Amino acid sequence: MSSRRIYLAGPEVFLPNATAVGEQKKALCRHYGFEGLFPLDSELTASSPEALAYQISEVNEQLIRNADLLIANLTPFRGPSADVGTVYELGFARGLGKPVYGYSHDDSLFLQRSWQLCGIGGEPGPAGDVRDSDGLKIEEFGLRDNLMIEGGLRQSGSDLLVQRADAASRYSDLRAFESLLQQLSRLSC
Amino acid sequence: MSSRRIYLAGPEVFLPNATAVGEQKKALCRHYGFEGLFPLDSELTASSPEALAYQISEVNEQLIRNADLLIANLTPFRGPSADVGTVYELGFARGLGKPVYGYSHDDSLFLQRSWQLCGIGGEPGPAGDVRDSDGLKIEEFGLRDNLMIEGGLRQSGSDLLVQRADAASRYSDLRAFESLLQQLSRLSC
Repeated sequence: MSSRRIYLAGPEVFLPNATAVGEQKKALCRHYGFEGLFPLDSELTASSPEALAYQISEVNEQLIRNADLLIANLTPFRGPSADVGTVYELGFARGLGKPVYGYSHDDSLFLQRSWQLCGIGGEPGPAGDVRDSDGLKIEEFGLRDNLMIEGGLRQSGSDLLVQRADAASRYSDLRAFESLLQQLSRLSC
Repeated sequence: MSSRRIYLAGPEVFLPNATAVGEQKKALCRHYGFEGLFPLDSELTASSPEALAYQISEVNEQLIRNADLLIANLTPFRGPSADVGTVYELGFARGLGKPVYGYSHDDSLFLQRSWQLCGIGGEPGPAGDVRDSDGLKIEEFGLRDNLMIEGGLRQSGSDLLVQRADAASRYSDLRAFESLLQQLSRLSC
């Protein structure tokens, strides 16, 4: 039987050592009996930056179609939420009916991070009607990110795995990722 | 023949007058021969904030499954990118094979906005190797947001419609939305 293929979604593609981190994630997948599909796997050439971007998007969508499941690194990225590219891929995989899993290296609440970026200082409030400096509502569900993200994971049968990592390894830490692989390999037995 | 149903994705759900804006979008849909499905349409009760969040997520996913297509308001929200809930829904609809459309009220480039939040001051650079203050790559594809977003629209056969709006109506302006409805109604004839 061939190994189950896991699409490895996450902001690791933006790291200076993206390829090396991708190889580490793929090696861990192999160790637990899976095949990892990392977004940078394909060599691409294009006539313009825009054309290259569309090619990468097309290849990534195809990689997800070819995957059996998806694991997303949902650690907040450049703002209160996870990387939007990763979130798009999470939704895409869910729409395709593939099981999705996710982890985050930030244990703060979405409410706290949203307030920090867009609130009016002090502590978030009043409870039940927290709004940003423009008067727009901030979610108060006790979740780690937008409800569609954690809801999608829940609908798929899993929960966001939250495991704090040091600032220096915020995007490259692999312990939570490995925990998920361990759980999945046990489920496969 | 019954009207085609459009799921109305966007950060309008966080506006103080979310329901009113939802009604306006639905009225515009009717005017052009469509039925609009707005995320707040269902009345929900739950035993806890978390349970309510998961219910909303489930209802929204079901609304998207019931829709024939999706139009997303992809105006940047609390950071350089579109609202992640909206982006999840965009990916979800794409995964389900439904046509997706999107518009933004911000005409700046993703590179500029990412640099503004996470760069090291001055102008973004050096060209071809722009990195944020943590050394992570910033996309330089000349796009308005992460490549998976505009790539998903392109794969679906459309392009992001960019139409600048005043700061006060950044999330509630409806002219770009109406332009898309007009185009879609012509396609339907």
